[in-house]
Amino acid sequence: MKLDKNLKILIVGLGLIGGSYAKGLHKQGYKVSAIDTNEDSIAFALQNDIIDNGSTEVDPKLVGEADIVVFALYPHVFKEWIEKNQHLFKSGAVITDVTGVKSCIVYDIQSMLRKDVEFISAHPMAGREVYGVRNSDDKIFKEANYIIVPTDSNTFDAIEICKGIGETLGFARISSLPPKAHDEMIGFVSQLTHCIAVCLMTCSKSEHLVDYTGDSFRDLTRIARINENMWSELFLLNKDALLAQMEKFIGEFNEFYEILKEEDTEKMKEKMIRSTARRALFDK
Amino acid sequence: MKLDKNLKILIVGLGLIGGSYAKGLHKQGYKVSAIDTNEDSIAFALQNDIIDNGSTEVDPKLVGEADIVVFALYPHVFKEWIEKNQHLFKSGAVITDVTGVKSCIVYDIQSMLRKDVEFISAHPMAGREVYGVRNSDDKIFKEANYIIVPTDSNTFDAIEICKGIGETLGFARISSLPPKAHDEMIGFVSQLTHCIAVCLMTCSKSEHLVDYTGDSFRDLTRIARINENMWSELFLLNKDALLAQMEKFIGEFNEFYEILKEEDTEKMKEKMIRSTARRALFDK
Repeated sequence: MKLDKNLKILIVGLGLIGGSYAKGLHKQGYKVSAIDTNEDSIAFALQNDIIDNGSTEVDPKLVGEADIVVFALYPHVFKEWIEKNQHLFKSGAVITDVTGVKSCIVYDIQSMLRKDVEFISAHPMAGREVYGVRNSDDKIFKEANYIIVPTDSNTFDAIEICKGIGETLGFARISSLPPKAHDEMIGFVSQLTHCIAVCLMTCSKSEHLVDYTGDSFRDLTRIARINENMWSELFLLNKDALLAQMEKFIGEFNEFYEILKEEDTEKMKEKMIRSTARRALFDK
Repeated sequence: MKLDKNLKILIVGLGLIGGSYAKGLHKQGYKVSAIDTNEDSIAFALQNDIIDNGSTEVDPKLVGEADIVVFALYPHVFKEWIEKNQHLFKSGAVITDVTGVKSCIVYDIQSMLRKDVEFISAHPMAGREVYGVRNSDDKIFKEANYIIVPTDSNTFDAIEICKGIGETLGFARISSLPPKAHDEMIGFVSQLTHCIAVCLMTCSKSEHLVDYTGDSFRDLTRIARINENMWSELFLLNKDALLAQMEKFIGEFNEFYEILKEEDTEKMKEKMIRSTARRALFDK
């Protein structure tokens, strides 16, 4: 199977990311259907020409005719769905996902899945501080990274299809990482930063912050608006990797604290020079 | 004295902020001159109609005819300048500044200053990750806060002039804080955030971060490009307030670490709900 516009794509979970996938793929000419338990989400997507077909129930016809199924669900809901409904998949279907943590889910899904269906995992590193299909927007992918997370059991064809989805959606960079390396990286660049943003908002009781905050504080706390159900689940599922990244950050932060306390200007400047050089690479 | 367009304004220190002041004030019809030791900065500002007059030396005529003098220098250079050159000020002149820390400088300047000249301190909370008059841009003030930092010895008239400068430059919000409260606030919203951004960039050696970073990491590290000379000076001058804010943040971050370690989902969600509610106020 190769990715082409005659393939039928089913999105399971029509939230912000599922909705943005549907929008982007549908715009590019794909037949897109969706399943979501929320009636309003399906109605909205149908009315706004985001999907061709939709159902609030696990419709055997929609599942059975899909060549590609994209899961955009909470990790534990994803696993339950596969357990309960995988008998409905079309033989030869390719399954992918958008889950933000991988080690805890990829191997489980692959080992429980029917052998005539293949799961190739992916992580679109995009999001917004608002939720639901009504806020979906395929433009969020334009500047974003798309990471394919294959295991040894994935085939070249499935990896190519997964890559093709990322290309079709217009991601800026497409790369590939094994599950463990993915989770360490995510623990650092995404989860640690969300922990920091939350702690910045909760560590001070000042009610008048908004009167004085400059861009710095706004930038560092934008992601402090956080879906507590999704993120607490993602944090727990990646607990060991995240704790390790938090320890690394605390160690560095405590070192900076001591340097300031001792008024060691030279060491402070060294750190600032290093951070400036590393950050400059992002702006090239 | 009231702020009007016949007043002559002198900017001492024509870097990013001094240059942006000059641009904004000159556009609004003020006569603006500048002193900066850097020949290129003065030449550039004259060629690009940012200032009317300029000098690379402390020109007695430029200083002596200025009704308002804005200091945009490093704190220690500012103090030295006043000590050495204050005899040149016009009697009745109003002096202001853009310094990012206040307790350590405002009282010193006020007590050393000639009694026929008044210093009213201000902090324009604006900046960019690039430097110098060539990067100056008065648009950086449009979304920014301008804080007037008066002491008991300031007069109503000088405070009004200082406020008028902020209004002329088009700041989004103009407010007033005593030096100590200003420094605590700055320790939190500006300096602590810069410490965090620097530590995020220095705590990990990964060379391939740029391939995987999403918006979150980019947002939290934008300010990690930092002028090490200016910021190490500002950190040291506000050392006690900053250390106190760092301790508060470390305490909260360690608490979050323990909550995750113990898998206390409810407590984690509570923190996320609180941070979301507080951050939402910024986006109204």
